[in-house]
Amino acid sequence: MELDPSPLALPFPEMPPIEGVTLRVARARYKDWGRADLTYAELAEGTAVAGVFTQSACASSEVEMGREQVKRGGARALIVNAGNSNAFTGYRGREAVEQIMAQVAEGIGCAPEEVFVSSTGVIGVPLPKDKARAGVAEALNAKPCTWEDAARAIGTTDTFTKGAHASAVVGGERVELCGIIKGSGMIAPDMATMLGYIFTDAAVEPGFLQEMLSRANGATFSCITVDGDTSTSDTVLSFATGKTGNAALGSWDDAGADAFYAALKDVCRQLAQLVVRDGEGAQKLIEIAVSGSVSDDSARRVALAIANSPLVKTAIAGGDANWGRVVMAVGKAGEPADRDKLSIGFGGTWAAKDGQPLADYDETPVAKHLEGREIRVDVDLGIGKGRATVWTCDLTHGYISINADYRS
Amino acid sequence: MELDPSPLALPFPEMPPIEGVTLRVARARYKDWGRADLTYAELAEGTAVAGVFTQSACASSEVEMGREQVKRGGARALIVNAGNSNAFTGYRGREAVEQIMAQVAEGIGCAPEEVFVSSTGVIGVPLPKDKARAGVAEALNAKPCTWEDAARAIGTTDTFTKGAHASAVVGGERVELCGIIKGSGMIAPDMATMLGYIFTDAAVEPGFLQEMLSRANGATFSCITVDGDTSTSDTVLSFATGKTGNAALGSWDDAGADAFYAALKDVCRQLAQLVVRDGEGAQKLIEIAVSGSVSDDSARRVALAIANSPLVKTAIAGGDANWGRVVMAVGKAGEPADRDKLSIGFGGTWAAKDGQPLADYDETPVAKHLEGREIRVDVDLGIGKGRATVWTCDLTHGYISINADYRS
Repeated sequence: MELDPSPLALPFPEMPPIEGVTLRVARARYKDWGRADLTYAELAEGTAVAGVFTQSACASSEVEMGREQVKRGGARALIVNAGNSNAFTGYRGREAVEQIMAQVAEGIGCAPEEVFVSSTGVIGVPLPKDKARAGVAEALNAKPCTWEDAARAIGTTDTFTKGAHASAVVGGERVELCGIIKGSGMIAPDMATMLGYIFTDAAVEPGFLQEMLSRANGATFSCITVDGDTSTSDTVLSFATGKTGNAALGSWDDAGADAFYAALKDVCRQLAQLVVRDGEGAQKLIEIAVSGSVSDDSARRVALAIANSPLVKTAIAGGDANWGRVVMAVGKAGEPADRDKLSIGFGGTWAAKDGQPLADYDETPVAKHLEGREIRVDVDLGIGKGRATVWTCDLTHGYISINADYRS
Repeated sequence: MELDPSPLALPFPEMPPIEGVTLRVARARYKDWGRADLTYAELAEGTAVAGVFTQSACASSEVEMGREQVKRGGARALIVNAGNSNAFTGYRGREAVEQIMAQVAEGIGCAPEEVFVSSTGVIGVPLPKDKARAGVAEALNAKPCTWEDAARAIGTTDTFTKGAHASAVVGGERVELCGIIKGSGMIAPDMATMLGYIFTDAAVEPGFLQEMLSRANGATFSCITVDGDTSTSDTVLSFATGKTGNAALGSWDDAGADAFYAALKDVCRQLAQLVVRDGEGAQKLIEIAVSGSVSDDSARRVALAIANSPLVKTAIAGGDANWGRVVMAVGKAGEPADRDKLSIGFGGTWAAKDGQPLADYDETPVAKHLEGREIRVDVDLGIGKGRATVWTCDLTHGYISINADYRS
């Protein structure tokens, strides 16, 4: 089925080329769709890599192998297959990944372990080796393409292409960070896994790149949820070509490290929010800010409990400032909370404070806020200094239609 | 809004009277509905009590007080208010509960702590003391009523009345267990909390009754989910009047203890499933049986992860045997699992075994099974001997309509 673009879609941004990164796409024809579905990023020698992966206990071969590959710290190529996730396919799935790694390695003269592979789409069907082989061969010889071309080719059920860009000054040099991402939920039989890739021309030591990516992930990709479901293939990789020529960043003490991290986190946050904006059936982007908890981690867990509550998500879909459902979600989060110190607000207006509805609560500005596309929910637990912000979307008839009414 | 009865509704069963339990209902008019909304169960002297309560950190005053009251072990009365949950109302809510306890205690000559109170309905509005006082006065003098009358009076957004009955032979005497329950999800502004009450004429020591109720709860009420949301008021109380005259059960070694527990668990399971059958928008009752896990607890957590997955619930709503979504839910449960040992089936037909789709998988019987009202999902993790079964319902447009489209 063809879906209309999300009402929360943003236009694809202007994004500069990254020296040391060459993008190409090809048609592997994993599905019968008239577009490129194999993406190839060629990376200059010396490119550092870092990655974060799904915590699923049933991860795909690509994820299992990727977890090992990033430990080596170097990357020369990325291949993304769209239309087949290769998940839950046993040893045959692994063989297909190994074939792609060997073919690319031979094509550009690198070690197979320097070739990273991601796949997204139907599960339970081993990635067809013949289609992969032909697609990779075509990609190796294809003309370079744009960021938007690549962003489109990695997509499956996405309703719009997603990219983000940021810059930083490191050691006097301007460095660029460009990211693309796909994901909108998990549509059967397509698992519309979240796959994100962030490229930079900065020089960064792999270990430190990993540290920064992991930290940024905790405040961005780990703070979004569409339906609380976790894919078997979620992957975010970051590649640093070092072509800017700055002294490689190796620790937080290095000049420019903070600036680079800020830009990296900015790109991660933009990409993460784009996924929520393409949430299945989403009509509203919801930002949930929790403060006053015993720790930041506790705040994040409370915020995710609210964000994953079907009752909160449907209330917001219906424009209903139902703070009682927020109370319920706080209560079930399993985190320290005191009913009589809890405060809840919408769009900057408090509805309840210290465990009781405000006597002079005026619902008018709140109702107006809830009519908009971007909703803000504030929760103060009143028992500590922890805080966190997460993003989600509302739960609508569109979600049910996409996931229950249509079959492939 | 008036909802049609659930397509999964069962007729109210035949239920015998329980000696030592007298049921009465009254109109407190908590809401403007033309029916009884205050239920009063008078209990004979010497009645033992046990209870299990929501684990919400934001529980209502009724729950907070009930947790303390059950420790004393004795009960003489139960009052259930429908139409106002009295949750999130601070000290004023607590005062209303204390007033009811004092009024009933004076009326029948018992200690206030022997009067148990539950409330369900709108949150954030203190239970109106004047209405409660008039309602209790009316109830104290009302004619006795039937189980079905009481089951109807405790309901709020329920689409059908719910009761269950079982018998056991204890020390040569036949004992009866009768239970009523209300709950169908949490509809704003009514929190359609799960409130359940099980009465028996058997004699049981309070401590042992608590032990049995807690154990039965772990296998029944704790194994159901409609939307994964947890109310601030969930309560199940069990009252044993001892009128049968059996030697009071005090431990698992007592003759008849196993039989009584089996009957208690049976009533609990029946009541629990009735709540799922009245799940908001439910079209199908789904039983999820997980085996082969490292422990029973682990199996329950995996089963609940599947049961709470919007993607699994929408797939079943759409009649789609989407085992990939089950893999995803197993993977995200955070419990030990091995992708390559996982098997998944529907209605007794395996779709995937040992981490791969079955080569000779025939979807025909599965598709037929999924057309029915009662769906069975089997998951074998293949790594241990733990097992658990949970019950849920599908996620449909009805759920969205009830929770997002209508406002009160």
